[in-house]
Amino acid sequence: MDIKEYVVNIGIKGKAAARLMASINTEDKNKGLLNIAKALLENKTYLMEENEKDMIAAKENGLSISMQDRLLLSEKRIVEMSQGLNEVAALNDPIGEGIKSWKRPNELRITQVRVPLGVIGIIYEARPNVTVDATALCLKSGNSVILRGGSEALNSNKAIIKVIKDSLLSSGLPYDAVQLISITDREAVNIMMKLNNYIDVLIPRGGAELINNVLANSTVPVIQTGVGNCHIFVDSSADFKMAIDIIINAKVQRPAVCNAVEKVLIHKAIAKSFLPLLYKVLIDNKVEVRGDAAALAIIKEITLANEDDWYKEYNDLIIGVKVVEDIEDAIDHIYKYSSKHSEAIITENYNNSQTFLNKIDAACVYVNASTRFTDGFEFGFGAEIGISTQKLHARGPMGLYELTSSKFLINGNGQIRK
Amino acid sequence: MDIKEYVVNIGIKGKAAARLMASINTEDKNKGLLNIAKALLENKTYLMEENEKDMIAAKENGLSISMQDRLLLSEKRIVEMSQGLNEVAALNDPIGEGIKSWKRPNELRITQVRVPLGVIGIIYEARPNVTVDATALCLKSGNSVILRGGSEALNSNKAIIKVIKDSLLSSGLPYDAVQLISITDREAVNIMMKLNNYIDVLIPRGGAELINNVLANSTVPVIQTGVGNCHIFVDSSADFKMAIDIIINAKVQRPAVCNAVEKVLIHKAIAKSFLPLLYKVLIDNKVEVRGDAAALAIIKEITLANEDDWYKEYNDLIIGVKVVEDIEDAIDHIYKYSSKHSEAIITENYNNSQTFLNKIDAACVYVNASTRFTDGFEFGFGAEIGISTQKLHARGPMGLYELTSSKFLINGNGQIRK
Repeated sequence: MDIKEYVVNIGIKGKAAARLMASINTEDKNKGLLNIAKALLENKTYLMEENEKDMIAAKENGLSISMQDRLLLSEKRIVEMSQGLNEVAALNDPIGEGIKSWKRPNELRITQVRVPLGVIGIIYEARPNVTVDATALCLKSGNSVILRGGSEALNSNKAIIKVIKDSLLSSGLPYDAVQLISITDREAVNIMMKLNNYIDVLIPRGGAELINNVLANSTVPVIQTGVGNCHIFVDSSADFKMAIDIIINAKVQRPAVCNAVEKVLIHKAIAKSFLPLLYKVLIDNKVEVRGDAAALAIIKEITLANEDDWYKEYNDLIIGVKVVEDIEDAIDHIYKYSSKHSEAIITENYNNSQTFLNKIDAACVYVNASTRFTDGFEFGFGAEIGISTQKLHARGPMGLYELTSSKFLINGNGQIRK
Repeated sequence: MDIKEYVVNIGIKGKAAARLMASINTEDKNKGLLNIAKALLENKTYLMEENEKDMIAAKENGLSISMQDRLLLSEKRIVEMSQGLNEVAALNDPIGEGIKSWKRPNELRITQVRVPLGVIGIIYEARPNVTVDATALCLKSGNSVILRGGSEALNSNKAIIKVIKDSLLSSGLPYDAVQLISITDREAVNIMMKLNNYIDVLIPRGGAELINNVLANSTVPVIQTGVGNCHIFVDSSADFKMAIDIIINAKVQRPAVCNAVEKVLIHKAIAKSFLPLLYKVLIDNKVEVRGDAAALAIIKEITLANEDDWYKEYNDLIIGVKVVEDIEDAIDHIYKYSSKHSEAIITENYNNSQTFLNKIDAACVYVNASTRFTDGFEFGFGAEIGISTQKLHARGPMGLYELTSSKFLINGNGQIRK
């Protein structure tokens, strides 16, 4: 079978499974999720053995330590994945929910209800836990899912998928509701990105390169997730202690995630007094500081940032610092360089808080809080499939609801249009 | 200036205008719309003169009568376009509206509000009224719009855009909030479809060929509109008179539109009694009838439909008729051939009505009513930008709300993530 035939065949099976999934009731979907959760624990030795093959290859191929860490399936991680499935089973089922309903003057009753999207494609890196998390959310929301994980995790993913599919079978759920593209040839992804007849939406999860590749080449609708070049603007009226606490939290608590802060903009009126205080705490926390000329004029140890820095998501203990003229200058800088993920202002000035909330174009705009709260759990949505940084369909943390569509049901008694 | 430079420049100006538009209040937007409405009437002689150039060329080039009719800017149509603008000005402004707001255990208040999408691209055929309708909806919803109309309407569109832009200027709205791509070279559309940095969403409006071209080639997110291969299933329990009234209304009242019925599926138990009655009324209404072998066995004058027929949106006084085994056979046929626009069942059987509503995957699913009601005005939404047949972002009639996105505003007092 050639690659195209292989991928199209997966698409056909995924679409057939999606049709079945749309009619499966909440109880049966939950039972399936709980069975998978149980089966993962029962098969943990098998999963860890298969993961070990990937880990050995990763070391041989010199994968970075942080990538090796993401690839590892420890017993603890398997327990967490299993718990994640139980948590998704406990969430409300959005499918069938009435969105609105009204009666027209001609007595037609129109009711908008939630339905699944259909077939969801997930393209991601070598993180086996995504295989389970994405499966859980897609199944609960009545969709079928086609997974394409990073080739470094192939043995781990194949093992996880085997456990999942066996559980689907024993739970009476469609066997093809979860499928893995196990050809590592990149051509498989290229074909997947053109599979408009069989895939309803593609969600790339990973770094900027992965996401940009999907955006540039997919004709299947894409939900753009994750890249976060987040800013915190410290206004002239800011409470210095609050500003420093928030910046350190947003940078240091988990630097490799998309809601970590990457740039701090400081109002020029307080730059001389505030920056030295901030700089000291950053250095104490082992954060490398890059800055513009005005920042260097205050702290000469700061490295000069170049134009690329202002666009960059470091995902590391590095931060960019820039002195700005005023709030409008800050807003302009953010408009130009931001990835429209999460932006914050630290201020005690009411008007400036409102200006910032109104004018910043981003999924999440904060006043006096850490950007780290942009997260499905922190918002109270439960598990998330990613954080959308686009404007179509979903924006911000995406949970079960963002994996649904709707349809209109119209009840009549013989109405015709005049 | 080469074509690419020309189109990219329009994108840059559109994005800058979108940023301005997002902050313009409802009153000023409405004033702008009313000024355009007035200016169209004041310039009707100019508009009709420019349209006449297109009409002469259309006749010379042998455009079909129906295309010529769509191209024509009569005084009556200009009045209608002007009224349309007044109606959109009277609609509620969705921008700034709160969608939901809640408080987290840590006292963070999260509020989701509606914001514009940004820059909307419309690719359409030679229908000058779309130029005005699309402009009205995009401006009211705080977006900027880039229009690419059919080349046959270029003089008409240029004249309309001139009137619109002059009105924007005198109303204090951004001059570039409305732009026309006036290069007729198809390369301009190809570039537009890759303009991800400047266009937030593309909405193609027109026939299947136009829409499929945009879907296959655009990397900018697309909202798929319009193609309607709509079915009416006449169940064995149907009220014959109601069924015939609804089918005739759905086929004959306006055959060229997307919510017209294209196929009738008849339960085999009533085919022999129902089809002759239906056939007579169809013929009386000058509808050509095509059918499957079972239909031909009942009415020998029916033309045999081929496989292509079942996929086709005729947009004409032609209808396909097929005898089906039962409701499940009808649902399977619709699943395979439908464009997921509007589907109806005529039945007196409660269970079958529920089965049809639940199992049919389409934007609009009807019981005992004409498919012709799938329309923004008929749903009570006001003017519409099109009818979405995709599942992402919007499904069914799209009005102002479907031209918006959202953002989360988060108010804190120093919260950091633990």
